[in-house]
Amino acid sequence: MAVYTDITDEELATLLADFDLGAPLSLKGVAEGVENSNFLLETEAGRFFLTIYEKRVSEADLPFFLGLMGWLAAHGYPSAPPIPARDGELLKRVRGKPCAIVAFLSGLSVRRPTAAHCREAGRGLAALHLAAEGFTLTRANNLGQAAWSPMFASLKADAEGLKPGLAAQIDADLAVLAAGWPQGLPTGVIHADYFPDNVFFQAGRFAGTIDFYFACCDALAYDIAVALNAWCFEADGSFNITSARALVAGYEALRPLSDAERAALPVLAHGAAMRFFLTRLHDWGATPAGALVRPKDPLEYERKLAVHRSSPDLVLFGAPASANASAGKPS
Amino acid sequence: MAVYTDITDEELATLLADFDLGAPLSLKGVAEGVENSNFLLETEAGRFFLTIYEKRVSEADLPFFLGLMGWLAAHGYPSAPPIPARDGELLKRVRGKPCAIVAFLSGLSVRRPTAAHCREAGRGLAALHLAAEGFTLTRANNLGQAAWSPMFASLKADAEGLKPGLAAQIDADLAVLAAGWPQGLPTGVIHADYFPDNVFFQAGRFAGTIDFYFACCDALAYDIAVALNAWCFEADGSFNITSARALVAGYEALRPLSDAERAALPVLAHGAAMRFFLTRLHDWGATPAGALVRPKDPLEYERKLAVHRSSPDLVLFGAPASANASAGKPS
Repeated sequence: MAVYTDITDEELATLLADFDLGAPLSLKGVAEGVENSNFLLETEAGRFFLTIYEKRVSEADLPFFLGLMGWLAAHGYPSAPPIPARDGELLKRVRGKPCAIVAFLSGLSVRRPTAAHCREAGRGLAALHLAAEGFTLTRANNLGQAAWSPMFASLKADAEGLKPGLAAQIDADLAVLAAGWPQGLPTGVIHADYFPDNVFFQAGRFAGTIDFYFACCDALAYDIAVALNAWCFEADGSFNITSARALVAGYEALRPLSDAERAALPVLAHGAAMRFFLTRLHDWGATPAGALVRPKDPLEYERKLAVHRSSPDLVLFGAPASANASAGKPS
Repeated sequence: MAVYTDITDEELATLLADFDLGAPLSLKGVAEGVENSNFLLETEAGRFFLTIYEKRVSEADLPFFLGLMGWLAAHGYPSAPPIPARDGELLKRVRGKPCAIVAFLSGLSVRRPTAAHCREAGRGLAALHLAAEGFTLTRANNLGQAAWSPMFASLKADAEGLKPGLAAQIDADLAVLAAGWPQGLPTGVIHADYFPDNVFFQAGRFAGTIDFYFACCDALAYDIAVALNAWCFEADGSFNITSARALVAGYEALRPLSDAERAALPVLAHGAAMRFFLTRLHDWGATPAGALVRPKDPLEYERKLAVHRSSPDLVLFGAPASANASAGKPS
């Protein structure tokens, strides 16, 4: 929920002069996306999103993000492609900041996903992984497992401030994750932020994915782990086995998991909880009191960490092997 | 810039079940309007604005506002009418708060209006006054001249905090305004917040007006005074005579002013500056440090007050009588 950069009608006219989109008809700042400034732009050619990239997005990564968005749309994935300017460029500048115009994608995100939504979301995630095959640009996951310990080094006091004793607990988690982190799993382009607010539905069916600004190359199953944390916890902190099973089944309907991927889901989910705990902890401490953005509560992910720590098998119930006798008994 | 109330997909579906607008296709929180929560809503029937009324808007006033919006659109004024529900009601509730669905109005507001924009804006304001003739509901101006002294009584310390000596200066202004406030001018429905961000243009021509949530019944010329303050000051605080003259000329092209109205413009403009100074001073003091809304600077209107206080004739240059010899010499 943020508009960091505001632009004038003159600046908009100057920008649009580089595009074949006709005259602007309306421009509305949208309370969406914490990382960038987003505007819903209507021109004579239709509706678009204008995104101005703020400092948290590295400009060097933008060709990967925009290239991926174009690639996915061109390969049949329901996502919003960037619109090239007349000179073929996807990236322009406004007020000295990089910006892009992206097609408008219809759809509604769900606030409280049902198991049926989770199945659809899983299918949409597998479709993303398959559609991205062949995309040649790469981007390392700079928020992946190797980054967590260095990141936490400067956040220990914040963790203790949240909850006394938490710093030692996180250190112990980090050691477990470092020792058990899976190697050699199938890799590819992952969304890395596949949360309900980034997934659109129409009439209950998966209808598209937005916000590719964390996309990177990593283990595909890690993306499932991120999604299990984001989609399958109830508001009271309990893990919904039915939703998890539906999400993985939806995924496997398009891309079956290998045994190694399935076996890795518990540690991947533990790690995915760590990644969002750490970035939320960082933002929590770094957000000034008067800021327009309300940071997300790091304790939500601290509770998810605790679930994975104490019940590592839990996630496996979401991914029953064909002859998994325990599938029937949610713990 | 505020979304105070967020609504879920289920709440939206429940609301839309009362309307003949088909299924929802997208919903975006819009960073627009400080008083209400606004969403750009797309359904199978088209595009709309969903507004949820927050505590600052009195629910008892909503029939006036919504009725006026419907009246204006029905009488050819470019504005967005509310959409009746199946039961004919304009007002519904979501999360216990009143809400309405309003048509989408295309257009872009201008950030730095030129004299040509001011002429168009003046024409649009006169058209509003004429289109509203015959609208039978009434609403007193609860932010009119009679309200200012009582309002300031509780804000003196805030004024002194802004600028030592300011409280006595404002008290003196209030006495001047009370003594000289014009009576018997032509009255009607006024917009009362006719600022550049509430006026749309297309290709340089006036294209519509939004945000009628301060509309009320008062002297029509007071609306011009509000607009002169909002449109005709430069960023450096100077009053742009050319813009003021264009605004009044644009207005008079549709609705010529009486001599009494023209003569009253200086005190009306002084008073209009007082009204916005006082509400901004109130919001400045009342906004908690962590709020999502950045209050507007009351000092901007304190400077406008000072201009009208020291050069009461200035505004008259914007409204030359047919034989006004002083029209040619901006002071």
